[in-house]
Amino acid sequence: MKKIEFLNPPEIIRRSNWRDRFETKVAQWLLPWDGEEAVGIGFIGIPLSKTSISVSAASMTPNAMRELFTTVTTYNIDHDVDLQELHARDMGDIQMHVTDLYKCHINIEQGLTHLYQTLPEIFPLIVGGDHSITCPSVKAFKKRFGGKVGIVQIDSHMDVRNLEDGGPTNGTPIRGLIESGTVEGCQIAQVGIHSFANSKPYREYAAAQGITQFTARQVALEGIHSIIDQALEVADKGTEAIYVTVDMDVLDQAYAPGVPAMVPSGMTSWQLLEAVFRLGQHPKVKGFDIVCIDPLQDPRKATVRMGLHVILTFLTGIMKRGKQ
Amino acid sequence: MKKIEFLNPPEIIRRSNWRDRFETKVAQWLLPWDGEEAVGIGFIGIPLSKTSISVSAASMTPNAMRELFTTVTTYNIDHDVDLQELHARDMGDIQMHVTDLYKCHINIEQGLTHLYQTLPEIFPLIVGGDHSITCPSVKAFKKRFGGKVGIVQIDSHMDVRNLEDGGPTNGTPIRGLIESGTVEGCQIAQVGIHSFANSKPYREYAAAQGITQFTARQVALEGIHSIIDQALEVADKGTEAIYVTVDMDVLDQAYAPGVPAMVPSGMTSWQLLEAVFRLGQHPKVKGFDIVCIDPLQDPRKATVRMGLHVILTFLTGIMKRGKQ
Amino acid sequence: MKKIEFLNPPEIIRRSNWRDRFETKVAQWLLPWDGEEAVGIGFIGIPLSKTSISVSAASMTPNAMRELFTTVTTYNIDHDVDLQELHARDMGDIQMHVTDLYKCHINIEQGLTHLYQTLPEIFPLIVGGDHSITCPSVKAFKKRFGGKVGIVQIDSHMDVRNLEDGGPTNGTPIRGLIESGTVEGCQIAQVGIHSFANSKPYREYAAAQGITQFTARQVALEGIHSIIDQALEVADKGTEAIYVTVDMDVLDQAYAPGVPAMVPSGMTSWQLLEAVFRLGQHPKVKGFDIVCIDPLQDPRKATVRMGLHVILTFLTGIMKRGKQ
Amino acid sequence: MKKIEFLNPPEIIRRSNWRDRFETKVAQWLLPWDGEEAVGIGFIGIPLSKTSISVSAASMTPNAMRELFTTVTTYNIDHDVDLQELHARDMGDIQMHVTDLYKCHINIEQGLTHLYQTLPEIFPLIVGGDHSITCPSVKAFKKRFGGKVGIVQIDSHMDVRNLEDGGPTNGTPIRGLIESGTVEGCQIAQVGIHSFANSKPYREYAAAQGITQFTARQVALEGIHSIIDQALEVADKGTEAIYVTVDMDVLDQAYAPGVPAMVPSGMTSWQLLEAVFRLGQHPKVKGFDIVCIDPLQDPRKATVRMGLHVILTFLTGIMKRGKQ
Amino acid sequence: MKKIEFLNPPEIIRRSNWRDRFETKVAQWLLPWDGEEAVGIGFIGIPLSKTSISVSAASMTPNAMRELFTTVTTYNIDHDVDLQELHARDMGDIQMHVTDLYKCHINIEQGLTHLYQTLPEIFPLIVGGDHSITCPSVKAFKKRFGGKVGIVQIDSHMDVRNLEDGGPTNGTPIRGLIESGTVEGCQIAQVGIHSFANSKPYREYAAAQGITQFTARQVALEGIHSIIDQALEVADKGTEAIYVTVDMDVLDQAYAPGVPAMVPSGMTSWQLLEAVFRLGQHPKVKGFDIVCIDPLQDPRKATVRMGLHVILTFLTGIMKRGKQ
Amino acid sequence: MKKIEFLNPPEIIRRSNWRDRFETKVAQWLLPWDGEEAVGIGFIGIPLSKTSISVSAASMTPNAMRELFTTVTTYNIDHDVDLQELHARDMGDIQMHVTDLYKCHINIEQGLTHLYQTLPEIFPLIVGGDHSITCPSVKAFKKRFGGKVGIVQIDSHMDVRNLEDGGPTNGTPIRGLIESGTVEGCQIAQVGIHSFANSKPYREYAAAQGITQFTARQVALEGIHSIIDQALEVADKGTEAIYVTVDMDVLDQAYAPGVPAMVPSGMTSWQLLEAVFRLGQHPKVKGFDIVCIDPLQDPRKATVRMGLHVILTFLTGIMKRGKQ
Repeated sequence: MKKIEFLNPPEIIRRSNWRDRFETKVAQWLLPWDGEEAVGIGFIGIPLSKTSISVSAASMTPNAMRELFTTVTTYNIDHDVDLQELHARDMGDIQMHVTDLYKCHINIEQGLTHLYQTLPEIFPLIVGGDHSITCPSVKAFKKRFGGKVGIVQIDSHMDVRNLEDGGPTNGTPIRGLIESGTVEGCQIAQVGIHSFANSKPYREYAAAQGITQFTARQVALEGIHSIIDQALEVADKGTEAIYVTVDMDVLDQAYAPGVPAMVPSGMTSWQLLEAVFRLGQHPKVKGFDIVCIDPLQDPRKATVRMGLHVILTFLTGIMKRGKQ
Repeated sequence: MKKIEFLNPPEIIRRSNWRDRFETKVAQWLLPWDGEEAVGIGFIGIPLSKTSISVSAASMTPNAMRELFTTVTTYNIDHDVDLQELHARDMGDIQMHVTDLYKCHINIEQGLTHLYQTLPEIFPLIVGGDHSITCPSVKAFKKRFGGKVGIVQIDSHMDVRNLEDGGPTNGTPIRGLIESGTVEGCQIAQVGIHSFANSKPYREYAAAQGITQFTARQVALEGIHSIIDQALEVADKGTEAIYVTVDMDVLDQAYAPGVPAMVPSGMTSWQLLEAVFRLGQHPKVKGFDIVCIDPLQDPRKATVRMGLHVILTFLTGIMKRGKQ
Repeated sequence: MKKIEFLNPPEIIRRSNWRDRFETKVAQWLLPWDGEEAVGIGFIGIPLSKTSISVSAASMTPNAMRELFTTVTTYNIDHDVDLQELHARDMGDIQMHVTDLYKCHINIEQGLTHLYQTLPEIFPLIVGGDHSITCPSVKAFKKRFGGKVGIVQIDSHMDVRNLEDGGPTNGTPIRGLIESGTVEGCQIAQVGIHSFANSKPYREYAAAQGITQFTARQVALEGIHSIIDQALEVADKGTEAIYVTVDMDVLDQAYAPGVPAMVPSGMTSWQLLEAVFRLGQHPKVKGFDIVCIDPLQDPRKATVRMGLHVILTFLTGIMKRGKQ
Repeated sequence: MKKIEFLNPPEIIRRSNWRDRFETKVAQWLLPWDGEEAVGIGFIGIPLSKTSISVSAASMTPNAMRELFTTVTTYNIDHDVDLQELHARDMGDIQMHVTDLYKCHINIEQGLTHLYQTLPEIFPLIVGGDHSITCPSVKAFKKRFGGKVGIVQIDSHMDVRNLEDGGPTNGTPIRGLIESGTVEGCQIAQVGIHSFANSKPYREYAAAQGITQFTARQVALEGIHSIIDQALEVADKGTEAIYVTVDMDVLDQAYAPGVPAMVPSGMTSWQLLEAVFRLGQHPKVKGFDIVCIDPLQDPRKATVRMGLHVILTFLTGIMKRGKQ
Repeated sequence: MKKIEFLNPPEIIRRSNWRDRFETKVAQWLLPWDGEEAVGIGFIGIPLSKTSISVSAASMTPNAMRELFTTVTTYNIDHDVDLQELHARDMGDIQMHVTDLYKCHINIEQGLTHLYQTLPEIFPLIVGGDHSITCPSVKAFKKRFGGKVGIVQIDSHMDVRNLEDGGPTNGTPIRGLIESGTVEGCQIAQVGIHSFANSKPYREYAAAQGITQFTARQVALEGIHSIIDQALEVADKGTEAIYVTVDMDVLDQAYAPGVPAMVPSGMTSWQLLEAVFRLGQHPKVKGFDIVCIDPLQDPRKATVRMGLHVILTFLTGIMKRGKQ
Repeated sequence: MKKIEFLNPPEIIRRSNWRDRFETKVAQWLLPWDGEEAVGIGFIGIPLSKTSISVSAASMTPNAMRELFTTVTTYNIDHDVDLQELHARDMGDIQMHVTDLYKCHINIEQGLTHLYQTLPEIFPLIVGGDHSITCPSVKAFKKRFGGKVGIVQIDSHMDVRNLEDGGPTNGTPIRGLIESGTVEGCQIAQVGIHSFANSKPYREYAAAQGITQFTARQVALEGIHSIIDQALEVADKGTEAIYVTVDMDVLDQAYAPGVPAMVPSGMTSWQLLEAVFRLGQHPKVKGFDIVCIDPLQDPRKATVRMGLHVILTFLTGIMKRGKQ
């Protein structure tokens, strides 16, 4: 292969325009899967947001996050953990249909099911897309583990809307999972639920289903650590595995200026990172998704960046499992 | 009336492009007044901001807030309160003159006075405009109650500038109320006053008038609950009614990116919501205004949205009166 | 009905915060349909853009345009025409489904068909949405007139993509109309087709179907008036009625900064207004739509504003029919 | 005076952070007036925009333009003219009152009158502010010259609104000048008047007063040079002096993205520069203002920059007087 | 290699999230060079903009342009040319030093020289970066061809500043080429030179050197085709090869909102595309660069997109060589 | 000197368009140095950011901050301190070279050295620029005091990169100071170091050098007051003087939206102001810089404003020395 003096090929440019030899960026570690190797941690994009009730460009999030891989390192100094010890790969995106949105949900469930069969060791880091993806994702997740699964949902919304008024949207994943018998309400914990973003009838539905809910105000008053512990207890009891789903609109709009459904006085960035660190540490947590970032409405990609830190901090928790 | 298949008339569209049958948005509850019915809570716009010292588009706030009515629900999950129990109506806007700003102040005082006479039960939620509106508004408020009135002002500024250098501006409402004998300094409490946003001579003036002041740093160090209690005590003593005025520039610029006079390190969104919830609960609080949001400078209407949550949380306090 | 001094009800505010008694804004003329009256010109929103290949918020265009009704008058000074002579009404929006996009297309066709049956005199001004709406819209249009219909399309794209790769999208309306036998290629004229925005195989398909195409460069070199005349000739020959469809991405990105698929060196704003004025004058033109504006990406609503001027200038042409 | 090595004092920084010794920026030529020297060309700011009907930050234009003085040179290569031959000074701003807008108009008339008395040779370049300033400005201008004055107005609006509905606003300067007997309609020419930005009753008023009007479409069809010549003829006949007033909203919104009242398909930047060059050449043109730029809504100060080029090109015309 | 159902690997996503089988995007044609194959057209990035006098992020342009490769097709419908017939490759970027800017210039000259030696058939499409890169680039270009080279520069600036006041910046490339004896002034033609963006002493220097200059106003008055023909004549006479350099600030700021040094009333997008098409057709044109786009200041990448169309239209010209 | 009625000269406008006679803005107190007077506090700009690894416009910060001088007062109400008691002057900016970045660093060291010799009482408030300036600045600082100097660095990055891979950049100032023997690691304390913004090898280097580090998470968990006290202890032990350097990227991106290298979950605005207040109080703190604000990427100059509050709060600490 010819080497031209001073000329960096485009592939290298994309990974890093300039490198400090003593520093590893996520872009140099979270490489594309080669199609053969076993994978410990798999980054999987699901670029679907046409199922969103309000206008959303969340389908652009997986690629927007990949673009930030060159800007963050693999080292968590707070816990002295270098993520390079994890064998992580970028698996690519699930294929979406342009106009058949139900087909998109089928692709998600089948694609993830096949992925779990093909790479049985993979821990999925799923990047939406809007929250509708969590329903097919948890269905595939459950098939993988056989028994019951619990859910810890960090979200300002309950996502238990009726399925008649608009079909399976970003407002219905939890409802869809309950109605399909995939998950039981008593094994679901929701953290960060927000005033004026939900309705009373759905609060009553959630209570009737046995869902445990913690509001954003409770997080502020009681502290995130205690609330996450309570949430984990709910999702842990009687289950084989726990699925963590993070809707970025749980954050105060100051910390997540780029979500479709902003709220003021939600959680802080610090609370969310502490939450996912703790969730990552729990041995039964075996699946993770993050949804509802709109890169088109996101000044300087602040919310995409926060989403990436959520993922990296969650992985830090995984590395600290059993070591605390 | 003819009904065209699949065609929603414009009025319905404005209220909600799509509805979940189990959810009520503020747009479906806070309806325009029909000109006849008795009103419990009245949303009143005062689109005046030419009286602002710096350039301000705060006159656009009432309409900007109305546009967000379709995005928030009536349910406060933190206190399990559904605002639908309140009979609230959108009363419209006070008429402003294009070039005669003194006439604008007269219209505010006369218009509100007439409103209070016509609808004696109405609780006014006044949406500015800039802070100059508080002077004529409190004058009308006082006439309504006869006796003395107290003020709790959440603001980073004291608003006691002299009236000679520019007339009645957004920097003078408290001065105007004191000099006109409407309110006494000792019945005024100011919360959130900020460094480098006020001058020492006015600090001395405020002290001489007996105004009680709490700085933003005090809020951070002592906690918002205790400080609001102290402020209410000041405004409660010897008065018939308390008027609450919120200048949104009291917030840290991260939480209020769309105010004309931004400050860093002001109050947080959580502190402000806690403050107005507590103020709403006090039985003597009988008037409320919110001012100084500039929708033209407000990314994704974050500050307008925060302003709407301030109003809804204040109403939650009202519904919890005597119930805590 | 009680009248409060100086208080304007919200409805009046929405129509106009301030009025000059000698000026009529579009908001005061293009009123909501009362459900009974006969209508000459009907403004009809179709808020569908999930069918767009790229991310698009074009579903927000009908409401975004309504918000600008208070900013433009009814008077065209270039042709001394006051649109108030037309009896125009805002009919509202066709109802969309949140997740079933094929149902959306059915609603469009059925809703318009029913509308044309109910109000036989109505001239439809259809505001998308993305370009996929033109396929069901022309199907309803054809049913109305019985015979053959011609199309003049102002667009930088041909919109003849195959229907297999993604279903009926904003890239397929013309293909859909041809394959369904609704319109024949030889009665379709396309103006403003742009380089690097289309592919050679589709150029060949269009040629095979007999579609007449004029590129943006031809418009620049030959002049818009002559090209529109040629386009009208194509659409006129052997047809009962002509349908005009304007995709705003035909404009140079300087003039349409808020379309999803921007191109440089497209048509100018002046050329487009001249085009629609001339199209409006043709007696056989009986239907009109305008599509592909993304209000979320549109600085100061420049493209929505341009879209509104396109509509008003087209109506000016209608008023000048037979008078030139 | 001490000189610190490598330290540039703040005053020099403001004029230019870096200088090429063979290049003169406007900042180095258009210096502040020293309070004594005779002045050939005077740059005068009038920071008033509270008189605007719609929200406007045009009061910030004079300072915004001064900030761009470091970015443009004094050399017009098209006409080989170096403006350094003109003795031009920045005179500062007329003092405005914060809340008494009628006082602002008085200050303008008196301030300019006094300025003309003090510096009889000065040619005024007046930078608004909104268009209301033109009324008091022309009153002062007329006093200076004794006889009749003509006006060439480049604008998309006629500015002849009635004075009852809102007082003297940016929509009334021409009406104010006519009603006060300052200028006669038959000596006023308006260039660039735009459809859907004016009303028919005012078109009739203008005709009745004998105002000559050229629409933006006429400019496009007939060419700017011929139309400016006709406009000058109107303003020249029987007058002592001509006043030129440029409202930047005459431009297509692509060329003036930062005006309060944007229109599409107005004049192009090239047409406007040609217009003012020609106006500058006319020996009777003795006053100039430019209004209605909103620096707060102006991306990268594009419209302020265009405004500065309008001024510099107009001055080029002045230098070419009698030389063409 | 394992294939997961419905999972697209990241590499494919980057090339195209969705494909229409009958359409080829630039991303599928302008592939990374494999290090071996002969190359007809080479896309070469030079990410240097620290040499810019004003702040510039033009170093981000090569990657910003690559990101748009998925949004444009290879087909020029105006000339019925499909660029796929050209064997074009993305060669990557020349390596820059972080703090040693003189080393950057050396890398450019040596890197290009080595590239031309290694791939003797390559036609270079060089994407800056700021205009300083043109000096070392033309030095390498000249070495390749031996004899004299001519330059056609499309630019609003002359770029003949003295080299003492700041070293080799974006204001000096032409001066640098003349002083180093690389190019003679009489073989340089500059098109689009702008008023108030250059100084008279440099106009005189250029004249003394025999440089031929056409201003933007001349382009408007005489037409771009004739002026490009004249420019080519200058660069053609007595030379072996012609180098074309396009500084995007030659455009009116409406068409290039994202250049560091914006001017109003520059060239239009249409004029620039016509210019490069004609330049591409000339058989002696053998090198090309495009500079001074700042992607950080570029709304919706409008200027980057225009830059890409400039390149594709120039290549269209190349394909039409000898065929007109 | 002539006085024109109602005309404010440009110099006065720049200081304040309107003044309240009882209020002093920073612009009226922090005046340009007259070149003679002794100075207590000197504001010094260092407009260098080409040494930044990523693109940065931090060179624009000194002027951007000066523009905000008219928006803040001199009064700190939290500590009842009026900064007017300090004799502070704006000294201007250190001269930078356009292309020779090593010369820039030499200018900084020599310029500051000369400044300290000329004005021995001056306390320097240095405003970058990027963090590379801290290396030459501390070298000059050390020469001034003779003995050892300690450093308290508030930063999310360690800034100990190797000097081979890119020369002296914003990633190397601490490394440069250690390797040059200017400062010892054991006298350096770093506060706010952030995960995924540094690498493990540099953590080990820092530890080996004896640098004391506190992460942002530690600040959140332990409180800023205690951590600053520990940091001061490190920098105090065995030193003559302490230099404080603040990199604004230490803040959570919500509080510093305009830094080149944003991180979520950094410090809050309140924590940073508390930190610098405490640092200002320490008697040994004798130098200060603040770096890495990019005014071009800073919405409504929020980060520049925060930087100015950092400086004013630090000065408040200085005034409280020995008084608390």
